[in-house]
Amino acid sequence: MKAVVYHGPGAIAWEEVAKPTILADTDAIVRVDSVTICGSDLHIWKGDLPEVTDGRILGHEAVGTVESVGTGVKNVHRGDRVLVSCITACGTCRFCREGRYGQCLGGGGWILGHNIDGTQAEFVRVPFADTSTYPVPSGASDEDILMLADILPTAYEVGVLNGTVRPGDVVAVVGAGPIGLSAITSARLYSPGHVVAIDLAYSRLEAAKQFGADIAINNGVEDPVAAIASITGGLGVDVAIEAVGLPATFELATKLVRPGGHVANIGVHGEPATLHLEQLWTKDITITTGLVDTYSTPTLLKLVTSGQLDAKRFVTHHFAPDQFIEAYDTFRNAGETGALKVVLTPSR
Amino acid sequence: MKAVVYHGPGAIAWEEVAKPTILADTDAIVRVDSVTICGSDLHIWKGDLPEVTDGRILGHEAVGTVESVGTGVKNVHRGDRVLVSCITACGTCRFCREGRYGQCLGGGGWILGHNIDGTQAEFVRVPFADTSTYPVPSGASDEDILMLADILPTAYEVGVLNGTVRPGDVVAVVGAGPIGLSAITSARLYSPGHVVAIDLAYSRLEAAKQFGADIAINNGVEDPVAAIASITGGLGVDVAIEAVGLPATFELATKLVRPGGHVANIGVHGEPATLHLEQLWTKDITITTGLVDTYSTPTLLKLVTSGQLDAKRFVTHHFAPDQFIEAYDTFRNAGETGALKVVLTPSR
Amino acid sequence: MKAVVYHGPGAIAWEEVAKPTILADTDAIVRVDSVTICGSDLHIWKGDLPEVTDGRILGHEAVGTVESVGTGVKNVHRGDRVLVSCITACGTCRFCREGRYGQCLGGGGWILGHNIDGTQAEFVRVPFADTSTYPVPSGASDEDILMLADILPTAYEVGVLNGTVRPGDVVAVVGAGPIGLSAITSARLYSPGHVVAIDLAYSRLEAAKQFGADIAINNGVEDPVAAIASITGGLGVDVAIEAVGLPATFELATKLVRPGGHVANIGVHGEPATLHLEQLWTKDITITTGLVDTYSTPTLLKLVTSGQLDAKRFVTHHFAPDQFIEAYDTFRNAGETGALKVVLTPSR
Amino acid sequence: MKAVVYHGPGAIAWEEVAKPTILADTDAIVRVDSVTICGSDLHIWKGDLPEVTDGRILGHEAVGTVESVGTGVKNVHRGDRVLVSCITACGTCRFCREGRYGQCLGGGGWILGHNIDGTQAEFVRVPFADTSTYPVPSGASDEDILMLADILPTAYEVGVLNGTVRPGDVVAVVGAGPIGLSAITSARLYSPGHVVAIDLAYSRLEAAKQFGADIAINNGVEDPVAAIASITGGLGVDVAIEAVGLPATFELATKLVRPGGHVANIGVHGEPATLHLEQLWTKDITITTGLVDTYSTPTLLKLVTSGQLDAKRFVTHHFAPDQFIEAYDTFRNAGETGALKVVLTPSR
Repeated sequence: MKAVVYHGPGAIAWEEVAKPTILADTDAIVRVDSVTICGSDLHIWKGDLPEVTDGRILGHEAVGTVESVGTGVKNVHRGDRVLVSCITACGTCRFCREGRYGQCLGGGGWILGHNIDGTQAEFVRVPFADTSTYPVPSGASDEDILMLADILPTAYEVGVLNGTVRPGDVVAVVGAGPIGLSAITSARLYSPGHVVAIDLAYSRLEAAKQFGADIAINNGVEDPVAAIASITGGLGVDVAIEAVGLPATFELATKLVRPGGHVANIGVHGEPATLHLEQLWTKDITITTGLVDTYSTPTLLKLVTSGQLDAKRFVTHHFAPDQFIEAYDTFRNAGETGALKVVLTPSR
Repeated sequence: MKAVVYHGPGAIAWEEVAKPTILADTDAIVRVDSVTICGSDLHIWKGDLPEVTDGRILGHEAVGTVESVGTGVKNVHRGDRVLVSCITACGTCRFCREGRYGQCLGGGGWILGHNIDGTQAEFVRVPFADTSTYPVPSGASDEDILMLADILPTAYEVGVLNGTVRPGDVVAVVGAGPIGLSAITSARLYSPGHVVAIDLAYSRLEAAKQFGADIAINNGVEDPVAAIASITGGLGVDVAIEAVGLPATFELATKLVRPGGHVANIGVHGEPATLHLEQLWTKDITITTGLVDTYSTPTLLKLVTSGQLDAKRFVTHHFAPDQFIEAYDTFRNAGETGALKVVLTPSR
Repeated sequence: MKAVVYHGPGAIAWEEVAKPTILADTDAIVRVDSVTICGSDLHIWKGDLPEVTDGRILGHEAVGTVESVGTGVKNVHRGDRVLVSCITACGTCRFCREGRYGQCLGGGGWILGHNIDGTQAEFVRVPFADTSTYPVPSGASDEDILMLADILPTAYEVGVLNGTVRPGDVVAVVGAGPIGLSAITSARLYSPGHVVAIDLAYSRLEAAKQFGADIAINNGVEDPVAAIASITGGLGVDVAIEAVGLPATFELATKLVRPGGHVANIGVHGEPATLHLEQLWTKDITITTGLVDTYSTPTLLKLVTSGQLDAKRFVTHHFAPDQFIEAYDTFRNAGETGALKVVLTPSR
Repeated sequence: MKAVVYHGPGAIAWEEVAKPTILADTDAIVRVDSVTICGSDLHIWKGDLPEVTDGRILGHEAVGTVESVGTGVKNVHRGDRVLVSCITACGTCRFCREGRYGQCLGGGGWILGHNIDGTQAEFVRVPFADTSTYPVPSGASDEDILMLADILPTAYEVGVLNGTVRPGDVVAVVGAGPIGLSAITSARLYSPGHVVAIDLAYSRLEAAKQFGADIAINNGVEDPVAAIASITGGLGVDVAIEAVGLPATFELATKLVRPGGHVANIGVHGEPATLHLEQLWTKDITITTGLVDTYSTPTLLKLVTSGQLDAKRFVTHHFAPDQFIEAYDTFRNAGETGALKVVLTPSR
């Protein structure tokens, strides 16, 4: 079969590799029908994640069809259409039993396209298939739910739920890339009074408005602290969601929040930030960090089915099976191409 | 001044009475600009609440203008436009300090139009004015917020929040009168997957659909338990909200709910219900009761201002200052008149 | 092997039966080292649970040693000492993924000694062994943890946690049998101000004091509502835990609770109760029911190990392997024998 | 009257000043019967809080007797014995209505001995007396409850409740001064499995053991991260409470916590800390900061009365009315004097 293979910083290739086989009795082999590329795939491509080694097949998001299952798989069957989630869960360790699958101690967590071969391939081996895949609801297309493999549960759990967005809140989302847009659209599920998008690019702020922000602040032009103060009676936002992953944007989030408010970090950080405890120690703030657990995936699937959530609107570009390299280029140059998320169909 | 005065079961009159004066230094005298009639006013009128005595001015919902305040009132000033809430809060007792104003031990609770004279008058004395009134947001009309005096916080707190409605939930609302419609519309703030209205009247079910129900069941015609089972994989609803106040509708709510689900009672009950513990003891259900506290009023005001909540859509009929008796007749005969809520302007 | 076999109402026997074998690859066969008898075993013995059929081996609580496991069992190994819990969990269904194992939709729940053969035997087949057993902490004896198979997680989850006991609370426990005593002792983990035991028998009230109640009320002699009012400033208790299972005791619990308080039902009920909604509708109370889920078992094991919880104090009587019938008689006649919990060692 | 007056960095005096008088109708004048000195008083004395100006009477903790009240005070009466809390609450602002009194927008918050004259005097003016004092329970001595004026609610709310300590948890408290000891003793209300005290001084670690720590780590000698790893299976503590106020101790707390755990900052910080987001972003941690609100004071008073909490054990030294300067010296040199908290009786 063919797959996107990582060969060290800056080097990926769509090349022939061995088709995966069942290694453990809880594995499933899934034919990949639709797959996308994540910001963290770009990090790997750049060499930011040295634990990813030469020869690794990338990708941790897919919708596919089960080709075969191990003898220990109970609830997933050949022919089932499934969502392959970015998080793999052993289902029995302490953290899995708490729904904290991202911290799985039994061999799961974020492993696909990271510690084991991933989904940007014609076929993928999915460990712990019973607790790491979700049946595609009847009537749903691949694209209706593909974004539930990562960005939507990430933004919903780590941003909106950790941040405890509530009706009437003023919510600031710092960064309006795909994760920030996911946070904006999923924050809307809780009917906040205002969702404020903050970004340096007008194009992303424009997208933010289409995804549910009613106020947009270009923080290259306008002071977001002052702008937020003016719409919150000087107090600050109820919830600030960090969706960039830089010290400066995290520190901005901590300056935007009101006494008693929440800062929910979603961003992937590569270096420490400064925490201004000399100002924050009296301010009753709550800061959360988190890797997605995907415990919300069943809820998000229901919201797609019942029409509360339009998950396919993130898809801006489609590519044919052999166009992975073009797809990576398009996604990587989002500033020029306007790409939010790209979709490929490797198995056709 | 003139006021609606109760003279025993079946007897109310719009008649001349003494204008109220400040009795305690925390009182305010408010000119009533807009007022409505509540289902509980009809209960009083029928004689169901014997604690309401001859001579009592009715009414516990109003928007008005402050005419004068006692020397102990700090934050409310002559000329302020305020929402007069159905719940009066001393602000210092144990329950008020927990935000449980409906259970106030310091002389508050539901007293207006009940233990003391109420709002269906040209002027009303509001005790504990600092903690029992809310400033009208700039730009909001009386009608934009009048329903926040009672039915919306009641349905939101006692139905939606006590019931813990969450995104993706299936919510059943038993009874589609004004309180049931308020529950339906405020449940939508949490993006449930489905809101099922259950009522005996097609006209009310039709209204329910306009207020946010996507499924309507006439339980005089169709078995709601079977209908709910068919749309919930046999499990039942996540949240069942009782908005009628009869043993049969409460018992229905307990039959509709899934294992682990919530039954939130809003209905005003005059007799005991049967609780089928022989079936429910293993079912992990949570049943809540409650009088409104109005702790959510500031949130609801924000939601009206920011456009998440259309509170004035409940108003179906308007009456001139002297038409209180006609207004009561219209509201009481809602089946024929189609009245949801009526608005009067006694002070004009 | 030998086992306690049910042969219809009033008829049980300790008799020779076939030793269990692995039926599914997720099964374990466990040698039963220590086992106890539950109040629900007495209900079965009396014929109250018609779903239990002739030939069924009873029992759903044990500590044992793993003899063999199916090929799909990952974390439990031959020779492991394990706690066999009253609740079996498939680990993958909707409810298991929420930790609501008692409602398992995948073939688990309370099945041992109920729908399949149980633990009052020399060996027991435990389905879904990975998610239905718990390793015995090093240094712990069988008796240290045997009560964690049922009564302690039941009282802790369904009574104390559902009732949300908090520091300083006044907690009433209605019924001071083994479950009530478990509720009393586990409520103490949250440092309530007072724990009030209510029972008709002075002997059980005496036991209640030893297990942590500081106030004891014999409700055959004293009016508990008045007694509670006098120690709570007329308001009622913060949490009332029902641990009997009769309409009268449930209704008593609802009369004891303060506005805003919780009624947590643990009792097994055979008939409906009356819910006085005409009084309770305004009182902001929360009523919960529940089957134990055993999600708290890991926590309770830690509390035994660290010395916060003395679980072996419930054991009043010990029996040799062949004395099951005597053990049942002793437990059944607790009023005379003073039995709380009995322990047998069938495998010796 | 006499009072402790601040005259700039390093200069305080017990000197004659004017007796306070009622300035607002919600004020009370309280005769100070017992008073203590806080760590923040030492900060003021050193000049760390420039907002405190020359002439200010210090102190924000007292038990006293009401001498007179303004006309707007409803629930506090001449002759009442009251606890004067470190936090003053207007009772009507947005934050006070949420119980977040420390953030009071109506003129309260931490003002006593900070923005207005305080309690280290023979008499003190207490603004908003109805919502800023608590009646002394009958039978309680001044010393039984004096520590409820600040250190116990601070440690309980900002450390234990913000950190969500639960039964069975492993809790680390970094810093074993009076606030750390308060955190240790109030954490025990939730029955944690282990409470680990971490400090540089063996004398404080010894005190920590007496207040409820079962493990003591001298982090000048032993690596606390390794020590904690060894007792938590390599995962880290459930809750890390920072009770020092330095960048290094805060950063240590963030290294001690397990995935999914809580870091509760109580320490008063004068400079920023480094937040290692490059490690923490995936770790699902929650960090909280906070000024005490004193919403827990009624609960703590109940716990003292019912015997769950021994608050007077913090008092190591007593001083006569005129010995304030000696008392400050004793408290300031705690390393030599072994002082935890000192008590003075200025009004005798």
